[in-house]
Amino acid sequence: MKGYVFHGPGQAAWEEVPDPSVKDATDAIVRVGAVTICGTDLHIIKGDVPEVRPGTVLGHEAVGEVVEVGGDVRTVRPGDRALVSCISPCGRCRYCREGTYGQCLGGGGWILGHLVDGTQAEYVRVPFADLSLHPLPGALRSEDAVMLADIFPTAYEIGVLNGRVRPGDTVVVVGAGPIGLAAIATARLLSPERIVAVDLAPSRLESATAFGADAVADAREDPGQLVADLTGGLGADVVVEAVGVPETFEMCTRMVRPGGHVANIGVHGAPATLHLEDLWIKNVTITTGLVDTRTTPTLLRMASAGRLPTGRMVTHTFPLERMQEAYDVFAGAADTGALKVVLGGEQREVIPVADA
Amino acid sequence: MKGYVFHGPGQAAWEEVPDPSVKDATDAIVRVGAVTICGTDLHIIKGDVPEVRPGTVLGHEAVGEVVEVGGDVRTVRPGDRALVSCISPCGRCRYCREGTYGQCLGGGGWILGHLVDGTQAEYVRVPFADLSLHPLPGALRSEDAVMLADIFPTAYEIGVLNGRVRPGDTVVVVGAGPIGLAAIATARLLSPERIVAVDLAPSRLESATAFGADAVADAREDPGQLVADLTGGLGADVVVEAVGVPETFEMCTRMVRPGGHVANIGVHGAPATLHLEDLWIKNVTITTGLVDTRTTPTLLRMASAGRLPTGRMVTHTFPLERMQEAYDVFAGAADTGALKVVLGGEQREVIPVADA
Repeated sequence: MKGYVFHGPGQAAWEEVPDPSVKDATDAIVRVGAVTICGTDLHIIKGDVPEVRPGTVLGHEAVGEVVEVGGDVRTVRPGDRALVSCISPCGRCRYCREGTYGQCLGGGGWILGHLVDGTQAEYVRVPFADLSLHPLPGALRSEDAVMLADIFPTAYEIGVLNGRVRPGDTVVVVGAGPIGLAAIATARLLSPERIVAVDLAPSRLESATAFGADAVADAREDPGQLVADLTGGLGADVVVEAVGVPETFEMCTRMVRPGGHVANIGVHGAPATLHLEDLWIKNVTITTGLVDTRTTPTLLRMASAGRLPTGRMVTHTFPLERMQEAYDVFAGAADTGALKVVLGGEQREVIPVADA
Repeated sequence: MKGYVFHGPGQAAWEEVPDPSVKDATDAIVRVGAVTICGTDLHIIKGDVPEVRPGTVLGHEAVGEVVEVGGDVRTVRPGDRALVSCISPCGRCRYCREGTYGQCLGGGGWILGHLVDGTQAEYVRVPFADLSLHPLPGALRSEDAVMLADIFPTAYEIGVLNGRVRPGDTVVVVGAGPIGLAAIATARLLSPERIVAVDLAPSRLESATAFGADAVADAREDPGQLVADLTGGLGADVVVEAVGVPETFEMCTRMVRPGGHVANIGVHGAPATLHLEDLWIKNVTITTGLVDTRTTPTLLRMASAGRLPTGRMVTHTFPLERMQEAYDVFAGAADTGALKVVLGGEQREVIPVADA
C-alpha cells in the first residue's frame, strides 16, 4: 500500500510501505476513507517531536472501514464504518480507568503517527480498537466526522471544559487557527455572553466571526484593552490559548479576570514567563492538557445533529494519493487560506477555499 | 491608644496613635485581646507592598471584644468576643455574592493593616463588621482562635481546596513555615495517602513531622526523586507552594504528576519560568489565590473540637506592649525557632519555643 512516511527532519514522502496486519488481539485494521493533516504533523516533519522515528507513517486522524479485527475486539466488526481517534487508550491503566485516556500508561495514548504507524495511508493498524474506534452513524459525511478525531474534542476538552466556560461568561480565544475556531464553536455550546477572538491575520479573524465570535481583535492592537472595556475593567472569565508561543500565553494571563481561567491548548516548544508577582493574589487557574477524547461520542452525536460547524472547517479536499499537495496547501495556509484539508472522503476532488 | 505604625521602608514603631471610632454604619470597634504577626507584615516593613501608606497601623489578624458597633451592624453586639478576619468583605459586590471575598470590589477585601489601620493596636476599627467578624465560642483560647484569622483558612482554601486534595493522594508541601505547616495539618482532613514536606531547615522539617507530614525532604537533596520513588515514577497528585520564590514554584511544577494540581499559596515578588514545553501535554492545573475566608466558620468549629493543631503553631507569646520584641523574634525565626508569635491572649507571659 501507499503511506506518507517521515524520513527525518525536513523529509517525508507518499510512498510504498508494507500493508499493516493484526499484531495484537486488540488491534483492528482500517481501510482509510478520509484523513486530515494536523499542525502537529508539521512539527514532526520539522523535527520538533524527536520520539518519532524515521520510517514512521504519519497521521492520527481518520475515518474508514474496519477490514479485520483481532480476537479480543468486541465493539467493531469488519464492514463497520468508524472514526479513528487520535488517542488509543489501553483502557486498563490508572489513567484510563479515570477517563484520562490521553495520559495512558499502558502503551496507548497518542501513539498513531507518533510511536506507531499512523493514518496517512491506505490502511492503518489501530491498537486498542475497542476504545480507539468510534462507530459512525451513516448520515455523517466522512470529511465532517474526521474533524472529531482530534481538533473538536481537543478544543472542547482542553479549551472549553478545562476553562470551565459557563453561561454568561466572557471568553477570549487567542489564536484563530483550526483549534481556536473549534474552541469558539464549542464554547458556544455553553452560552457565553460573548466570545472575543484574537489573531494577527484578518482572514482568520473573519473565520472566527463565521464560527461564532462576537468580537475580534488584532493581536498587535492591545486586545487586553478591548477585553477590559467589554468587562468593566475586570478581564475575561476564560481565556483560551490556541497558539503555542510564550507571547500569546503571557497575553492570556494578562487578560484574565481575578478568579478566572486560562486554558492552554497550544503545543509549546519553549518556556513562558509566569508573572506570579501579579498573579499570586488573583485566584487564577491555569490548565494544560492533551485531549482525552472522552467527549468524542457526545461530539459525534452533536455533529450528526448538525450542531457543530465541522463542514465549515474543511476548506480543501484531495484524493488520498495527492498527499504531498495537501501538505503543501496546509503548510502554506497563510497564502492558501487553508483551515483543514481532507484527503479522501465523499468529495474527492480538489476544492479550494471559497473567496480567499 | 498604642499601635504598631509603619513609617516607610525599614521603619515601624509601637507608639501613641488616635483611638479609632465608628466611621461607617457597618463598622465595629474591637478591643484587641490577641494579635499575631504575619510574614506579609515583614514584607510591608521591607517596602515590598507600596500601597501601604506611612502612618498605617499594621496587622490583619486578631481576636477581641466588640466595644462599639455602627447602626447597620446586626451579627455582633458590644461585649461579644469575636475573631477579626484578615478579609473584610463588602458582601454586596459581584465577587462577594459568589463567596470570593478576597477579590471584593466594594472597598473591602484585604484592607486591615494594608489600606486602613490594622489590628496591631489596642483597638481596631473593623469595616463591614457583619462579615469581617466571626463570633467566637468561649471554649476556644484567643491564641488558638487568632490562627484562624489568616493562616489556617489561607492554607486550607488556597493550598488544600484549590489543590483538590482527595483521599489517597500524595501531597507535597514545599515550604514548612507557618503556612506550609497549616497546609499539612488541613490536608490531613482530606485523608491523603501521604504528605511529603520539603524545606531547607532541619528544624522546620521536624515541625512538619509534628504537624502530620509522613516524609520530609531537604530541598537541596533532589526531593523530586523522593517523590518519584514514592509514586512509581508518576509524581505527586497535589503540590502546594508555600514559599514564594521562583525556584520553589518551578520545583513544584517538576514534582506534579500528569493530571495533578499545583496550588500556589506563596506571595511572589518576581516572575517564575513556566516550562510549557514540558507541561502543555501533562494536563496539569495551576492555581493561585488570596484567601476568601469562606471556610473560617467551618475551621472555627474544627478548632473548637480540638481537630486543628492551632496551639502547636504558637511558639511565643508576649504582652501586647512588647510588640517590637515580638517582631524581632518572628523576623529572626531561623535563630529563634519561632513559628507564630501571639501578643495578648490568655497567656501573656513570654513563652520561648520548647527545645529549640
